[in-house]
Amino acid sequence: MPNISKLGMEMPSSPIRRLAPYAMAAKQRGIKVYHLNIGQPDIKTPESAIEAVRSIKREVLEYSPSDGFLSLREKMVNYYKTFQIDVTADDIVITVGGSEALMLAFMSCLNPGEEVIMSEPAYANYKSLALMSGVVIRPIPSFIDDGFALPSIEKFEEMINERTRGILICSPSNPAGYLYTREELNRIRDLVKKHDLYLFSDEVYREFAYTDQPYTSACHLEGIEENVVMIDSMSKRYSACGIRIGALVTKNKALRATVMKFCQARLSPPLLGQIVAEASIDAPQEYTAHTYKEYIARRDCLMEELGKIEGVYSPVPMGAFYTIARLPIDDSDKFCEWCLREFEYEGATVMLAPASGFYSEPGLGKTEVRIAYVLEKDELRKAVRVLKEAIETYNKLRE
Amino acid sequence: MPNISKLGMEMPSSPIRRLAPYAMAAKQRGIKVYHLNIGQPDIKTPESAIEAVRSIKREVLEYSPSDGFLSLREKMVNYYKTFQIDVTADDIVITVGGSEALMLAFMSCLNPGEEVIMSEPAYANYKSLALMSGVVIRPIPSFIDDGFALPSIEKFEEMINERTRGILICSPSNPAGYLYTREELNRIRDLVKKHDLYLFSDEVYREFAYTDQPYTSACHLEGIEENVVMIDSMSKRYSACGIRIGALVTKNKALRATVMKFCQARLSPPLLGQIVAEASIDAPQEYTAHTYKEYIARRDCLMEELGKIEGVYSPVPMGAFYTIARLPIDDSDKFCEWCLREFEYEGATVMLAPASGFYSEPGLGKTEVRIAYVLEKDELRKAVRVLKEAIETYNKLRE
Repeated sequence: MPNISKLGMEMPSSPIRRLAPYAMAAKQRGIKVYHLNIGQPDIKTPESAIEAVRSIKREVLEYSPSDGFLSLREKMVNYYKTFQIDVTADDIVITVGGSEALMLAFMSCLNPGEEVIMSEPAYANYKSLALMSGVVIRPIPSFIDDGFALPSIEKFEEMINERTRGILICSPSNPAGYLYTREELNRIRDLVKKHDLYLFSDEVYREFAYTDQPYTSACHLEGIEENVVMIDSMSKRYSACGIRIGALVTKNKALRATVMKFCQARLSPPLLGQIVAEASIDAPQEYTAHTYKEYIARRDCLMEELGKIEGVYSPVPMGAFYTIARLPIDDSDKFCEWCLREFEYEGATVMLAPASGFYSEPGLGKTEVRIAYVLEKDELRKAVRVLKEAIETYNKLRE
Repeated sequence: MPNISKLGMEMPSSPIRRLAPYAMAAKQRGIKVYHLNIGQPDIKTPESAIEAVRSIKREVLEYSPSDGFLSLREKMVNYYKTFQIDVTADDIVITVGGSEALMLAFMSCLNPGEEVIMSEPAYANYKSLALMSGVVIRPIPSFIDDGFALPSIEKFEEMINERTRGILICSPSNPAGYLYTREELNRIRDLVKKHDLYLFSDEVYREFAYTDQPYTSACHLEGIEENVVMIDSMSKRYSACGIRIGALVTKNKALRATVMKFCQARLSPPLLGQIVAEASIDAPQEYTAHTYKEYIARRDCLMEELGKIEGVYSPVPMGAFYTIARLPIDDSDKFCEWCLREFEYEGATVMLAPASGFYSEPGLGKTEVRIAYVLEKDELRKAVRVLKEAIETYNKLRE
């Protein structure tokens, strides 16, 4: 039997994937599993967006342009304007989700072995997409006790060497729900400018910023317009993860031309997803307003309920729909597995994502979990109630 | 401004992309352009497949499983049975078109710098997808005067070295419309077995085989079951190029597990495309039968019309919907560009793909073009009439 590639061997399995069979087995035992582990919102996709695909008149579902429909890109231009992000349709390339956008950005900007610096905890798939692109991620940890604030710029500068080509940020962030301040972003801007780096900015949670400050995009940062590669996605904004429509946005013409060569090799982004995306942007204002209010209410509900469990600590997340919480347990990997395999309370249990999966350095995040508040408030309350019992029972068994 | 990556610089622009602006300019001058250059069929997608997406009941367009819906994979199992291809749903991974399937196959099977041998002329994007995966393609030319038959196995053996990991075939082939015989495939099988290589088999044109022999899939070849990686796509079969649904099929469990790690990193294949794909498989038998008959009629029409032009030679294509024809001209790159930029006959011109784009070695295919018979017969006749005039005028100007 022929060998598997080294890359194939190195590619990490999703940490949640490790727990998935236990969740399935629990369900088969008749246990209700509260999924606080995933980024799949239960919010409805805009009705008008689904209606757009229900009423398609096409007779041939043909290739779309490699950079996506111009009509979609023009709608996005107007959408970006509402965030004071000033781009043209030519600055946008439609991709197969944010995932492809990041992979194409890496492949277009970095040679194999070159490095991108990012702070952790971070979205676990960044590492996988970097591996696929031959890119080395150099992580700098941020910590729950600092509320996951940006590590000092000195830490970044220490990491910079002749192979460094970029910095990757995600704000609001998955998994911590942290939102960079304008001041933090200015520090990153100065660093990017000083060393002429790329700034890869994952802004897929842009809508979900819960502070009073206006949202700061990497595209707002002055003097690094040619360095910014913004990664976007329709998935979370319109609860349309399945349509696989994202975007790579850059004002750097040479980079855009390069990205297009990769796009041509994979022919086109999904046609039907683009139809949904375009109609989503046209969804009534109330859709976004309602979704926003709903997440704030869920966040507040989650914080309130977590506050009732002794020994649990979570910074108040300022964006996205996640938080990282410290639990009074010895090991969150063990605890999350135990919840699914051995625990139930009134016929239910919880599934959480161990925070170790978002850090590179072994030991970091060991007593922390990521909680996604993607359930409605009543369910969320019940889920946290089950979590409380789980922590108590788990610790009693270990006394 | 930061550098573009070496990979980005090496990625070829699509050769047709080079001609596209000239085609657009011709249209702007009011000239009708007969598109014999592309693989986008004008055949309708099955009505029932589009109806499936028109009647979706979902309220949330959520992620689908990373390997695609089980229901789709089960339908594919039954579809494959009709070709005596015996696989299970677990042997199938749904991908973002055949393009992603091939890239994931390369990334999972080969280390950077390792080699795949294939015969040319070949689909131009193979090279791009190999580049993206760090894989080196070692081409062996086949020639129009041999009807593009499989080069001798000795030629393959000469290419094999310590870096060789696989052979890539496409049958029926884009761009030549060649269909490997069972005997040719047996020779490849023996070679694969002898050197324990992977056999990557692109079978996206499986339906479009016009000989009396039953179709031979790589999955039929005995003794190399763990070596075969079959690449498939719904695009051509159901004229649904835009849905971006393909598949990687392998009985090699270790390979499947590896491919899945890549699939998890990009989350999921398009949801709506899968709904169309599933319904396409259920399309009435007449759909496939009608499409098949239509392509045979077009092929016969094309051959008949080409036969009327002095000095044109094309082998009779045995599959797919392309042929490579030799034209009585000096240089097909120049000729194809000239057709779009300087020629018109009764208000029309033709767009063809120069065959040089399907060969690696400079000079090969210099007087040949790929003609896609994706137009209905009346249009096809008119297009070839225009081609005839173009050849005459072009040569007159050069006398």
